[in-house]
Amino acid sequence: MRIALAQFDFPVGAVSANAERIGALIAEARDVHRADVVLFPELAISGYPPEDLLLRPDLLSACEAALARIAAATHGIVAVVGHPESAGAVVFNAASVLRDGAVALTYRKRELPNYAVFDERRYFAPGDAACVFEVDGVSLGLVICEDLWFAEPLASTVALGAQVVLVPNASPFERDKAAQRDTLLAERVGESRRTGEGVAIAYLNVVGGQDCLVFGGASCLAEGDGHGHPAAAAFEDHLLVADYDPATRRFERVSWPVETDEQRASLAYRAIVRGTRDYLHKNGFKQAVLGLSGGVDSALVLAVAADALGADNVLAVRLPSRYTSDLSNDLAVEQARTLGASIETLSIEAPFAGFLETLAPLFVGLPADVTEENLQSRCRGALLMALSNKTGRLLLTTGNKSEYAVGYATIYGDMCGGFAPIKDLYKTEVYALCRWRNAQGDGSVIPEAVIDRAPSAELRENQTDQDSLPPYEMLDAILFRDIELEQSCAEITAAGFDAAIVDHVLRLVRSSEWKRQQSAPGPKVSRRAFDRERRYPITSGRY
Amino acid sequence: MRIALAQFDFPVGAVSANAERIGALIAEARDVHRADVVLFPELAISGYPPEDLLLRPDLLSACEAALARIAAATHGIVAVVGHPESAGAVVFNAASVLRDGAVALTYRKRELPNYAVFDERRYFAPGDAACVFEVDGVSLGLVICEDLWFAEPLASTVALGAQVVLVPNASPFERDKAAQRDTLLAERVGESRRTGEGVAIAYLNVVGGQDCLVFGGASCLAEGDGHGHPAAAAFEDHLLVADYDPATRRFERVSWPVETDEQRASLAYRAIVRGTRDYLHKNGFKQAVLGLSGGVDSALVLAVAADALGADNVLAVRLPSRYTSDLSNDLAVEQARTLGASIETLSIEAPFAGFLETLAPLFVGLPADVTEENLQSRCRGALLMALSNKTGRLLLTTGNKSEYAVGYATIYGDMCGGFAPIKDLYKTEVYALCRWRNAQGDGSVIPEAVIDRAPSAELRENQTDQDSLPPYEMLDAILFRDIELEQSCAEITAAGFDAAIVDHVLRLVRSSEWKRQQSAPGPKVSRRAFDRERRYPITSGRY
Repeated sequence: MRIALAQFDFPVGAVSANAERIGALIAEARDVHRADVVLFPELAISGYPPEDLLLRPDLLSACEAALARIAAATHGIVAVVGHPESAGAVVFNAASVLRDGAVALTYRKRELPNYAVFDERRYFAPGDAACVFEVDGVSLGLVICEDLWFAEPLASTVALGAQVVLVPNASPFERDKAAQRDTLLAERVGESRRTGEGVAIAYLNVVGGQDCLVFGGASCLAEGDGHGHPAAAAFEDHLLVADYDPATRRFERVSWPVETDEQRASLAYRAIVRGTRDYLHKNGFKQAVLGLSGGVDSALVLAVAADALGADNVLAVRLPSRYTSDLSNDLAVEQARTLGASIETLSIEAPFAGFLETLAPLFVGLPADVTEENLQSRCRGALLMALSNKTGRLLLTTGNKSEYAVGYATIYGDMCGGFAPIKDLYKTEVYALCRWRNAQGDGSVIPEAVIDRAPSAELRENQTDQDSLPPYEMLDAILFRDIELEQSCAEITAAGFDAAIVDHVLRLVRSSEWKRQQSAPGPKVSRRAFDRERRYPITSGRY
Repeated sequence: MRIALAQFDFPVGAVSANAERIGALIAEARDVHRADVVLFPELAISGYPPEDLLLRPDLLSACEAALARIAAATHGIVAVVGHPESAGAVVFNAASVLRDGAVALTYRKRELPNYAVFDERRYFAPGDAACVFEVDGVSLGLVICEDLWFAEPLASTVALGAQVVLVPNASPFERDKAAQRDTLLAERVGESRRTGEGVAIAYLNVVGGQDCLVFGGASCLAEGDGHGHPAAAAFEDHLLVADYDPATRRFERVSWPVETDEQRASLAYRAIVRGTRDYLHKNGFKQAVLGLSGGVDSALVLAVAADALGADNVLAVRLPSRYTSDLSNDLAVEQARTLGASIETLSIEAPFAGFLETLAPLFVGLPADVTEENLQSRCRGALLMALSNKTGRLLLTTGNKSEYAVGYATIYGDMCGGFAPIKDLYKTEVYALCRWRNAQGDGSVIPEAVIDRAPSAELRENQTDQDSLPPYEMLDAILFRDIELEQSCAEITAAGFDAAIVDHVLRLVRSSEWKRQQSAPGPKVSRRAFDRERRYPITSGRY
């Protein structure tokens, strides 16, 4: 039996386009690959996650109509397609088995995740039944994504005789999740061996960026004796094909590009590149603009943008002030030239002077403070947004996770922009990815001096980040414990950090929530990203 | 039996302060009012909604310790206190009965709302048992908030013999919700009469602003024969006291300030005032600043700010440009003087000229467009933020719901600010509230000419809003159908609107989602507010 897994991108809300793509892939699986069954990802018709579009009757009826159209055209192959299923007052996260021009049966997801980035109980009612069907004498089962993370759904499917279980997923990328997924598959297959010969699993994941999420693909196959196959290439669209032999209980990969070790070392970078490209392209942008300061954050974002969009679609802008060093200006030019991106220079002195002059009568006798620093950053933001408005380029924001965490960024200034590629990378991770990118085959794309110099916002004379923040190694370690592990101040201090520093850092995190809630989205790569995964109140008495 | 209902504000995350306040109110209920039982709102110890603070072990253990302290001090009265209850790996939304220095029993909320602004299934496991206890020979039951919106929880409580059921709530203000609540209470009481004499209900709601929500108080009493009492004054802190006579099955109000008809007509305005005051005060701000344009939106926000904070705590700033009319400048001064707020004037010409001069080399040969309009708005935003930074005043944003809906606002410009008081009022509602405010006892606080003139952003010569938008009556009617009713383009057109206009408006709404996700929070007053109640993807193929 030949199985095709459609590891493709099905954008949210693009119901007609998704339906067309599904139809074309069904035909390709049948006519080109001679597949017996073709599997599509979770909610392929609506895209995932549709969020509150699921509350719109027009979206639901469009999905229903699309499913009927796809089913009517399905002959000579069995297709399994994910879609929202409206049934009276409730909606199910469903996948339907299409054959002989009709919907043969529909499976309803039983375990609905409602944690981290997931809100499925806001929209869906849980299913309560297993689903098994036959293709060419092989008994196939079907469970959806979160179902696999619990024992019961697979066990009840195996109990109905399933030899191979198809698992459509929409599983957002997160560092180290692949290892968890492999462990989970081995565990479930092992459980199935307690009652029989062991079930085989064909696990399909969607690919593509959707706002603050990136879906990784990396679909995989597991056999009943515990043998696994290498995952399919991550972040790439491909119609994967494998044969399953019920006699040997083995899969044979027919069309299955796999990850190289080199690729596996760069998952986070590739997630960011894919997330950035998809955000721009899906929202109608071909070109980007960003401020290039000569520092490490904007250097990495420029490299990402060039990799995502092509360097000739990226405009870097130097925005010097009286405090900008010659080194910063030189390094920015050097990097843009190396990559082949355009570069322009706009001094912020004229509007900055205009602001100071205008405010002078009200600021008489008041010392300079963060106000003047923020004004410089806001001049830069306004200039970049003017370029964005005038030329139709999307403005990329260059802040990192450490800055978003402690509020070391100017709202309406350097936080301006439509997408924030490195928002979920701590500063120390930014350095590591710069070094990794420079080690790739096309040579050093970020000047070494950018990586080696002391980080500075250059908003006053001789400023460095470490004037107001602890060293980044320490800061990031404290932030990781606070944000990713939800440790208390006492726990972090007990781990060996200075109590006054921990207290200071946690206060900064709490008092910056209002800024984060007005920030641009960026692709999740960590186990706990900001945006929809960490939902803190702004107004908070203590925590 | 004397019942006290603590209609107070219990801020989110302020565990120690909330515990102290609860302790003091228990003592006051007992010693001053001689109450037999005192009820506190849902999750009074943590505040509501605690959001992802509930994922922090330190928050949960602080709540547990606070509950123990309160219980230990509870003698001579029965106190019912809402709190998160951590039990192994799960957390319950609980309320505990405290008496004789200990926790006597704990009720766990059974119905967990996970729609609209609610995410309770993200945090809580549902309880599965009714709760009844005795005080002075009267059998009291306990259900929490959403429990009352389903028949079973109250029915099972009545089945255990409850004569009076206490209902602690955290129910966010929404126009017309009071009527729904009254209907619901009558329905539940009616159901209880089918099996007995009819249950009495003491319904307590919390008060206060929490980010984009405002809790209204307006607690109430219902008797077993269907007789209701007038709701307590909305948006006001009060220890409400009533006697219940088991012989007559009647409540008698002892200390129970009620709403006047006049107050009932102004609920939305009072919600906005309370929400604004609490946002500022809870976040450490006494004073506000706002741009005053001479238009109706900023005029209403100035009135709200003056009512919320005192006029002497509000600074209004005129930010004229070459396109600002004399009338706008004059009206702004007139309103500030009438209210007694400070007013300053900062021309945007100097920084605006600086931006144009700086960009000129890149913009050679390109016609003026929205870029130059946005730059003016961003000059205003930067000047206001500079005043905010330098003086510690919170910047209030003056945009209305119609503008946020269609994106008729400049991000990083007039959208700058920490709080947006009228974010959930359509433009036509802004006019209505201006007229209502002017009709109050203290006379006209908004110049009539502000209300009568044609709305304009004044970003180019002779501009009016209706150059690019349909008349506001039509726009708001279309938006209401799209946002509040989730009607499709076809349905709205079928209701009699021009198809091209509807299509245009819905496109604007979809393409402005990225701006809304970077906007300041504002108090919910409608049945479907932006912010946490309407969760749309930015990247959306069609809807």
